[in-house]
Parts: sequence; structure tokens; C-alpha cells
Amino acid sequence: MTKHKTHKSALTENDGVQQPKMVNARGVIKKKDISVDTYVSEIQKGNRVFLSKAITLIESTNSKHKEKANTILKACLQTTHESVRIGITGVPGVGKSTFIEALGLYLTSIGKKVAVLAVDPSSSITKGSILGDKTRMEDLVKDKNAFIRPSPSGNSLGGVARKTRETIMLCEAAGFDTIIIETVGVGQSETAVHSMVDFFLLLKLAGAGDQLQGIKRGIIEMADSIVINKADGANLKPAQLARTEFKRALQMYPHKDNGWIPKVTMCSAIKKHNIDDVWEIITSYLNLTNANASFTKRRQEQNKFWLLQTIEEQLKDNFYKHPKVVKLLIELTKKVEDGQVSPFDAAEQLLQIERTS
Amino acid sequence: MTKHKTHKSALTENDGVQQPKMVNARGVIKKKDISVDTYVSEIQKGNRVFLSKAITLIESTNSKHKEKANTILKACLQTTHESVRIGITGVPGVGKSTFIEALGLYLTSIGKKVAVLAVDPSSSITKGSILGDKTRMEDLVKDKNAFIRPSPSGNSLGGVARKTRETIMLCEAAGFDTIIIETVGVGQSETAVHSMVDFFLLLKLAGAGDQLQGIKRGIIEMADSIVINKADGANLKPAQLARTEFKRALQMYPHKDNGWIPKVTMCSAIKKHNIDDVWEIITSYLNLTNANASFTKRRQEQNKFWLLQTIEEQLKDNFYKHPKVVKLLIELTKKVEDGQVSPFDAAEQLLQIERTS
Repeated sequence: MTKHKTHKSALTENDGVQQPKMVNARGVIKKKDISVDTYVSEIQKGNRVFLSKAITLIESTNSKHKEKANTILKACLQTTHESVRIGITGVPGVGKSTFIEALGLYLTSIGKKVAVLAVDPSSSITKGSILGDKTRMEDLVKDKNAFIRPSPSGNSLGGVARKTRETIMLCEAAGFDTIIIETVGVGQSETAVHSMVDFFLLLKLAGAGDQLQGIKRGIIEMADSIVINKADGANLKPAQLARTEFKRALQMYPHKDNGWIPKVTMCSAIKKHNIDDVWEIITSYLNLTNANASFTKRRQEQNKFWLLQTIEEQLKDNFYKHPKVVKLLIELTKKVEDGQVSPFDAAEQLLQIERTS
Repeated sequence: MTKHKTHKSALTENDGVQQPKMVNARGVIKKKDISVDTYVSEIQKGNRVFLSKAITLIESTNSKHKEKANTILKACLQTTHESVRIGITGVPGVGKSTFIEALGLYLTSIGKKVAVLAVDPSSSITKGSILGDKTRMEDLVKDKNAFIRPSPSGNSLGGVARKTRETIMLCEAAGFDTIIIETVGVGQSETAVHSMVDFFLLLKLAGAGDQLQGIKRGIIEMADSIVINKADGANLKPAQLARTEFKRALQMYPHKDNGWIPKVTMCSAIKKHNIDDVWEIITSYLNLTNANASFTKRRQEQNKFWLLQTIEEQLKDNFYKHPKVVKLLIELTKKVEDGQVSPFDAAEQLLQIERTS
């Protein structure tokens, strides 16, 4: 049964010394009984049960839960910890879970506290995101200095990304100093993850049609490092060739504003070879960007981006949910498509609803 | 002085038989005197002076002008003509003006009525857009079946694109059956133009670092045809090589949904060589997309896109212009950048202003 261990049992195993304060007869915490203050102080102590429960509030569609989550977040923001946020992408089959587990275990072994999150707008509880099946990271799940949370569910990338970003803040308040955010590499999710991390890593395989032309060009431009995984056994030679090819390809791209020159390396996540080299690359990136202050600048820009992003999504949400808008939009869309009404005129009619109500 | 002929004099020259109905003592039309009905009926007769004046209303920042423009647009929408909208892009120096003039003259010679517009959000009256200096299209300016209008000025791409799209509608109501929209190829303007045309043409040069790797990949994906210009004299051989290279490169891209396989050709705009071949490509595109109904489908999708786009821009505009928002946004942005307030909390505070006012 170990293989099908669930999220909850993994967390319970991880509790360690920090027992929740309020439990009912069956040992289950009653959410409504827990005050914001308790949440905040327990999270700040690094209590993962409370961290998990607060994340569940963030992910809830219930407006009271959301409100509580916001109050918790606001209070948690006062405790600032140094942290690094690492985004990891790569096509399915490239070995992302194995790589993240290897990197995570390496990091806890050198004293880091690691949180692993994901942005996967296509995932749902039934379909299961790549992190949903946590048996893929069996050892990391058991590590008391690691915290793994699957992607929040939801169909809109905006919503999923927002929840993940709020989760990052909570994890940092709980003392996690290294946040790894995985993306499944479909649609725009890389862009969303890129906008919330300090360092963006692209995982690749050698050969097998998985060379340069297979990747969306934008992804290469975003990458701070390309890591060729599964560089072991008979794969070692092709991996070395791929490394050379990627190094050459990267030279064609314009330099990054922060002065960083993206690095290419290879590793074998399954054999845990060369994982330290990946971390060394990240460390030298942090040294450079802290020295030239671009690290802080980027975080500031990201915060501002998220402020505007949140406002604009909310404005759209409010507008399109208005019952009169819903009704008229259907009618007008048809007329606009057929050219009977100009898009601008139709927009004007719809905006009129908001003004008069 | 011919070289520095202005927009107005070019238009006056072009007036032909259709004289404006209302002029003051100095022969100047008084805008406020012209009724919407007159505008509409004159535009529908193909009167370019009224067309120009209506476009000026579209471009005006005066809200009364805008309102009048909207009423004119709405009425003009009732007269539908068959038309084709062609987007043309290419880096500076590729010979866009010369190419557009050659194509325009070819089209009027085969009986078409051609309007040439531009989307250039960086342009202003003082800086002058690529079409601002109309001496670049000296012969086309004099052609009574051609109408040339520089890019509307404005810093926001959204605003410029909207004005251009409304101008397309007016030009079509005035009987122009071929609308050419130029973009300068900076920033996101290609995407905006692509969203308002039926056919998208990328103009290229052979050799000189202007091969594949120099282009934004997205542009290639948008192109329905790549035309290598300046294929004459010593340039002919490199152009032939470039054509082969581009053909090969295009094969790497996934097929378009409408079944069209992008074509590569070459021409010499200055010598007016092979311009008919470009038109033949466009014609075969129109035949295919009309036969499989994708032409209409695309126009419908574009209309819908513009409806949503207009709504969303307007929502943002209204919000960010609110005096209380302006004030608080400055304060909160600073706090958000410094990590004192979460972006989500700040967004909430700002959205609260709209709710309570």
C-alpha cells in the first residue's frame, strides 16, 4: 500500500514534534476553530500541518476561506526570510519528478529547507497533476525538511498561478528557503512560472527529436540554465553532444539584462550524478544577481506585475460575471461575428450595463 | 517642392469629381456643420475628403468627435463590400514602402481600389511614421484609386490598433476592396496587425545577417507568405538561395488550421518585377479559404477578439484613470515592490475604491 500513500498521510508522517493545538475527539483539526493568530504563529514556527491548512484556505472557492487566507497572508508577509525561487520546466518524460527529488534531497542534505510546488492549470483532482502522485518523490516526501504540494486545481491559468504565488509566500513565512516550482510545459504556464521565480531551469533530454527545433523559442529565451538529464550509460555520449549544441545555440540569443550568461550542464537525476553542479550554477547566479542588485530589482518588478495582473483579472471577472452582461454578451457576440454590429459598438453597449448598474 | 508635398494637398489633388458640399468663404469644410448623414452618404459614394475627415474624427481625443465617429461607423457598417485585408511586415530597410507602392499600383492597374494604412504605435506627428512621409509613395499618392493614410498617433498599441481597425471599416464602406496594413515590425504591433487581416505577408532580404535566426519566431509562424525583396542584379543569386532556405525552414512549422501552406517567393519592388506573382499567391489563398469557409470563420473570430479586447482595454482604462486609484496606486506600488504589502492585498485595496464609488 506504500505505493499509493496519499498526500494527507505523508503530511501526518511529517508532523514531527509540532502537533496541532486543537483537535477533536478523532484527532482531526476543526478549521473553523483555528484563529488567524494561531495560523500565523504556527506557520512562523514552521508547522507544516498549519501551513497545509492555510494553503487549503487559499485554494478554496469559499469566500470566507479566501478572506481568512488573505488575513493570514498579510500577517505572514511581516516575517521575511531570505529565499530563492527556482522554476523548472521540461516536456513529459524528461524526468522532472526524479530531477526535483534528486535536487531536493541534495538541498536538504546541505541544510536547506525545500518546498516543491507546481503550476498545472490542466490538472484536477481526478486527472492528477504531475505532483499529485507523490509516490514519484517517495524519499523527498519523507524528508522532514521538505514540503511538497501538488498544483492547485482550476481551469484558468491566472487563478492557478495566483494561488501558487500566495503559497510561495506562506512557505517562505514557514521558513522554507528554497522554493521549487514545477510547470508541465503546456500553454502559457511557463510564462506564469517565469514571472514568479528568481531562476528558471529547462530540463532536456539528448537526441530523439528533442533537440532545439522541438522547443518553443520563448522557453529557451527564458532559461537561466539548460540541464540535460539522463546523462548516463549509453546516453552519456549523446548528452555531451547535446550540451555542445545547446551551448552553441545559446550564443545566438541576446544577453540578459542582468548580465547572466545562461549555463548548460548535464546530470543523471536517477543516479544522482552532477546534481551538485546544478546547484553550483544556481549559486553563482545568486552571487552575480545579488552583487549587481538585479535579484531585488527582479523581485520588485514581479511584485508590481502581480499587482497589475491581479487587478486586471479581477476587473474582467467582475464584468463578465454580471448577469446582464452574460445575457447580452451572447446576443451581441453572434451579431459581431456576423458583422451586423461593430465590435466597438457592441463593447460600448456592454460597458453601458456596468455604468448604469 | 513636390518632394515635400503634404497629406492634405495630395488628397485635394485626388478629389476628382466629388467636391465637398459645404465649404466656407475660404473653401474649408467646417466640420461641425457636416451631419452624420452627409458623412455617411459621401463616404458611401467613395468621397475621399469625407473619408479622411471621418478618420480624423476616429483619431480625435475629443469625446464628441469620438461619439460622432461611432455613429458614422455604425451607419457605414450596413454597407458591406467584399474586401481583402493584407498585413505587411518587415524590418526597416527591407523596402516596405517601395513594395507597397509597387503592389498598390499593380492592384489599381487591374481594377482594384486600394487603401494603405499603418499601425505604428511609436510614431507621432513630429517623429513621422513610415507612411508619414508620403513622398515615399509618390506615384501611389497620385493614383485616384488609392488612398493612403499614415498611422494614427498614440503611445498605446491598443489605441492605435483600434483606430486602424475602425479606419479599415470606413475604407471598406467607401468602396476600397483591398486594404493593405503596414506594420513597422517593432514590439507587439505585428500581432495586432495579424489580428485584423486576412493575409499576412513577411518581407525579407537575402543574406546580410537577415536570415532565419534574426527573426522573431512568432512572425514566421504568422506569415502566409514570405517575399524576398530586392531580388535583382547581383542580389538575384543570394535571393534564390534565401528562397530555398526559407522554403525548407517553413516545412519545420506545423500546418495551418485553414489548410494553407505558406508560400515563399521573391520580387524586385523597385523594378516592379514579379509583383503579379505575389498577388497570385494572395489570390490562391483567397480561393482556398473561401472554398473551405475559413475566410469567414477567421473574420468572425477576429470580430469576437476585438469585442473582448475593446471591453478589456476600456475596463482597465476606466479603472486606472480613477483619481483615487491614481493616487493610491503610486503609494501601494512602492510598498508592493518593497514587499511590505502583498500584490494581492494591494489589488484588493485598489479594487475596493471602484466598488465604493
